[in-house]
Amino acid sequence: MNLLYLEDLAPGQHFSGGVPIRIEDGRVRTFAAEFDPQPFHLDDVAATASVFQGLAASGWHTAAVSMRLLIDSDFKPAGGIVGAGFDELRWPLPVRPGDELRVECEVLEVRPSKSRPEQGLVKLRTTTLNQDDKTVQISVGNLVVKRRRISSSDLNEGATE
Amino acid sequence: MNLLYLEDLAPGQHFSGGVPIRIEDGRVRTFAAEFDPQPFHLDDVAATASVFQGLAASGWHTAAVSMRLLIDSDFKPAGGIVGAGFDELRWPLPVRPGDELRVECEVLEVRPSKSRPEQGLVKLRTTTLNQDDKTVQISVGNLVVKRRRISSSDLNEGATE
Repeated sequence: MNLLYLEDLAPGQHFSGGVPIRIEDGRVRTFAAEFDPQPFHLDDVAATASVFQGLAASGWHTAAVSMRLLIDSDFKPAGGIVGAGFDELRWPLPVRPGDELRVECEVLEVRPSKSRPEQGLVKLRTTTLNQDDKTVQISVGNLVVKRRRISSSDLNEGATE
Repeated sequence: MNLLYLEDLAPGQHFSGGVPIRIEDGRVRTFAAEFDPQPFHLDDVAATASVFQGLAASGWHTAAVSMRLLIDSDFKPAGGIVGAGFDELRWPLPVRPGDELRVECEVLEVRPSKSRPEQGLVKLRTTTLNQDDKTVQISVGNLVVKRRRISSSDLNEGATE
């Protein structure tokens, strides 16, 4: 797998994940116990009576698993996957124990940094899907990606300013 | 602690957390190994050479801990903390092993749902700070919050449409 630099990326490019990750019932509960201890993530009876109508993984568990799926995908920026921040993060459907998740992503925008000629920002939409191809998470993140080379015009600009 | 309904919330209200959570070195590495296995979250030497200039917690670890801090705060909506999605999620500074994190939050917007008179949406900005009062995460989320009662005008509206 070749590492990707800013010059290799363009809007409309798609990347996808490797092996789907299965969300285990026990891990839903231990993740929730540590980070999001609310009844609908921990207890079957309470979950059935809640807005989720059954045990659901914490959205932050889904987000963390989605990151792992992205790391294991064919999207391999040279400096790693470094998020400057997200413009959007949504969970349209609950994730249930036993679900198998995968990710697909699309480059939305690529722009060189004006202040730091050695890098740029890539806006990436990552969609997490379950085994029925239903979307369980959508994120739009801005990633810091290295440039392969600095053009002479950038260097001249830097030298004259 | 009284549970909060939509009617109890208004823009400008502040809520804050209880006991700060210390980010343990070992947990930074085990969280990263499971969900975000990149060198700058796992290995001291690689981290020193990276954009983070030292071992840094995964942003998703910070997000998960921030959720736990919010759960333990005095912000207690009646139906639990249920996020419909986020408009913003940023990590202005890295979180380091040994940091002690706390949250502060502010209600930005409160609006009853038009289609579901029993609930509404609350836009909440949550700021995660470290022991030096530096901001390590900012999120702006939209939460689904129950209404205490349905006004007669809502019922009339429902009956005539």
